Amino acid sequence: MKNLVSMKDLSVEQIMAILTQAQAFRDGESSNLTKKYTMTNLFFEPSTRTKTSFEMAERKLQLDVLPFETGFSSTLKGETLYDTVKSLESIGVDAVVIRHEQNNFFDELIDKVKPVIINGGDGTGNHPTQSLLDLLTIQQEFGTLENKVISIVGDIAHSRVARSNADALIKLGAKVNFVCPPEWQGEFNTVNNIDEVIESSDVMMMLRVQHERHDGKTSFSKESYHADYGLTIEREKRMKDSAIIMHPGPFNRNVEIASELIECNRSRIFKQIENGVYIRMAVIEMILKGRE
Amino acid sequence: MKNLVSMKDLSVEQIMAILTQAQAFRDGESSNLTKKYTMTNLFFEPSTRTKTSFEMAERKLQLDVLPFETGFSSTLKGETLYDTVKSLESIGVDAVVIRHEQNNFFDELIDKVKPVIINGGDGTGNHPTQSLLDLLTIQQEFGTLENKVISIVGDIAHSRVARSNADALIKLGAKVNFVCPPEWQGEFNTVNNIDEVIESSDVMMMLRVQHERHDGKTSFSKESYHADYGLTIEREKRMKDSAIIMHPGPFNRNVEIASELIECNRSRIFKQIENGVYIRMAVIEMILKGRE
Amino acid sequence: MKNLVSMKDLSVEQIMAILTQAQAFRDGESSNLTKKYTMTNLFFEPSTRTKTSFEMAERKLQLDVLPFETGFSSTLKGETLYDTVKSLESIGVDAVVIRHEQNNFFDELIDKVKPVIINGGDGTGNHPTQSLLDLLTIQQEFGTLENKVISIVGDIAHSRVARSNADALIKLGAKVNFVCPPEWQGEFNTVNNIDEVIESSDVMMMLRVQHERHDGKTSFSKESYHADYGLTIEREKRMKDSAIIMHPGPFNRNVEIASELIECNRSRIFKQIENGVYIRMAVIEMILKGRE
Repeated sequence: MKNLVSMKDLSVEQIMAILTQAQAFRDGESSNLTKKYTMTNLFFEPSTRTKTSFEMAERKLQLDVLPFETGFSSTLKGETLYDTVKSLESIGVDAVVIRHEQNNFFDELIDKVKPVIINGGDGTGNHPTQSLLDLLTIQQEFGTLENKVISIVGDIAHSRVARSNADALIKLGAKVNFVCPPEWQGEFNTVNNIDEVIESSDVMMMLRVQHERHDGKTSFSKESYHADYGLTIEREKRMKDSAIIMHPGPFNRNVEIASELIECNRSRIFKQIENGVYIRMAVIEMILKGRE
Repeated sequence: MKNLVSMKDLSVEQIMAILTQAQAFRDGESSNLTKKYTMTNLFFEPSTRTKTSFEMAERKLQLDVLPFETGFSSTLKGETLYDTVKSLESIGVDAVVIRHEQNNFFDELIDKVKPVIINGGDGTGNHPTQSLLDLLTIQQEFGTLENKVISIVGDIAHSRVARSNADALIKLGAKVNFVCPPEWQGEFNTVNNIDEVIESSDVMMMLRVQHERHDGKTSFSKESYHADYGLTIEREKRMKDSAIIMHPGPFNRNVEIASELIECNRSRIFKQIENGVYIRMAVIEMILKGRE
Repeated sequence: MKNLVSMKDLSVEQIMAILTQAQAFRDGESSNLTKKYTMTNLFFEPSTRTKTSFEMAERKLQLDVLPFETGFSSTLKGETLYDTVKSLESIGVDAVVIRHEQNNFFDELIDKVKPVIINGGDGTGNHPTQSLLDLLTIQQEFGTLENKVISIVGDIAHSRVARSNADALIKLGAKVNFVCPPEWQGEFNTVNNIDEVIESSDVMMMLRVQHERHDGKTSFSKESYHADYGLTIEREKRMKDSAIIMHPGPFNRNVEIASELIECNRSRIFKQIENGVYIRMAVIEMILKGRE
């Protein structure tokens, strides 16, 4: 693993190795890096938890982190992403995390620049560290992914979380349902009725309604979305005893999920965020060690 | 002391303990923390000196500081402050400093999230570390607050500095005059004539005219405000020999204070800023130690 | 050297000492500072490579770096640059790097504030660390500046790079041609035809067309500028065997330089960026040591 841009590039063995190392970090292991590295986080789209999670992971690994304000950089003067990253390479940056609104932004970088490229989210494409932290959370819960039924509910077509998770979950033996309104189905085979899957799912993975990615043409009512596709208080009661609730955040309370369920017993939402730090430590360390 | 959101929560003993510890830091004492902590500064309103002062205090205490660009975070996607802080808790943040335009923003956080909450300024409400640094500056000057006459002049109704200081100064035995135009008086008992207090005050504490908090309806002339309520060169000459000038900054030169007085012999304006770093070190250390 | 704001302030001996120290850092020497210092970088104009380069240099020197978001500071409340820097002085900042749109912004600071002032670019005025890294790059190539022919091509009138380099190059014995369209010539003696200098130059230093500094009144065609003043693939073939290409970045591909030449054998563009880190380390260390 020389970079991490898509879950498709990872074998089952690589995924399991990352989960194992992340769990080791969670259990208290500290960094095994012997050299000093410098990283930069280039977030061209707003982010709280992913960016802060990477910042924390980098500090826990004792890396130097150069600040980079994307809203105040030479991209404003028309500089290409390639030229920006190539400049950071010359400055001595060893690895960059990039979130960018353009799908597959990394195609112009991989094998063309020296710094490690870690995808922090590309348009509606991939979000591999989110997918890995989801896998870790499910594995912690059930010990395995094998034969677990995961229902991903929401804006499937626009969700990089759905896309990243689809491959990985199936690769690891889980069964995946996609649930969404017909107009958000994209290239996926989906179920249009959440009530068909609520009782049989081990994991209800609710996605954020991404108001900012829609064109505003269609009429959208929070109340009717909540009634039709949301995890309501009523639906939660019909879930299997052992089933859990997940959400990548940030959430719209009372849209895709009832506000009262965010911190209920079944919710692993904040545990997902905890796991994110350890997953990112594992990914960064494994890639940098591979280059030592 | 588990958090610091308002001066009202502090006893006289607690205030004196903070001042004593701040003075010890000023005299060269270094951090007594034995564990490693991570902090984040969430400034939802512009700030130079308060934010930079906290950043410096945190580094002097050898804490890890996660950067957080509020203008580029998930609050843009509608995330609540509670959800943001709860996410930072999961990421492993031990304490947050928050400045927010909403009065009492902390009500939705205190006793509901694990990280320490330190108020860096809430709307027109509180600004406790500013108040503490003001107290330290006065104490350094006169050895005591007892019976000192402090005249706070300016935009009393909109000033969190006035509000924070009112309680604390009186609690510590000082006599406080509020001086302002009738329309800025708010719930305070005020004097409308600065010339009534100029000769009897030990401290002239000038407040910034906050152009950005006014509605622009009223005609406001810098020249006439300076003449009527400003600390002019003429008025400075009538102050008691031992009296000092304070201002929380940033200042409007030649509006609330004559430009030439900013660095005059009586001015403690930049000493206030120096003290701010030590006050913040003391507050952060005392709260974190209390949790060890 | 107590500050660095313009190349005009540096003697030939001082320039050579900086280049020597920068080369030593490049060859692996580490910081010789014995005290702990705190720096802040105030960039009031967008920047990628200069800001990140300073951030890297400061970390390599093991300095503490306070973050400062200029777009979210008290300058929004009308605070002057002097008052901002004076406040940072009180907070304990030892040195500031400033980029500002106003020419000679440093006139209100030098000898009036304690922190070291390093100019990171002032309006259309100076950019001394860029000039120094250019000198180092040329010296590495040819061993000396003496009698080398440097052709600076582009937006001479608006370029702080041209202005900073003019003095320094001539002081060190180089011969400088300025090449530009008549309307961009400013106070310089210029050649209007790039083909007059292409075969005799040791260095072709191409400047960025600064679309953001022009008033948009004149019609400007990228294609005709490239044909008339750009370093085209055809022109590169007519350069001397030993001649090199430089550019301060960020570049407009296929405007001032053909995209294919950015990473060609003659190009020292990314080496310039590498050198920038070492130059900035040398400048910061020499000034801070001078104050110890």
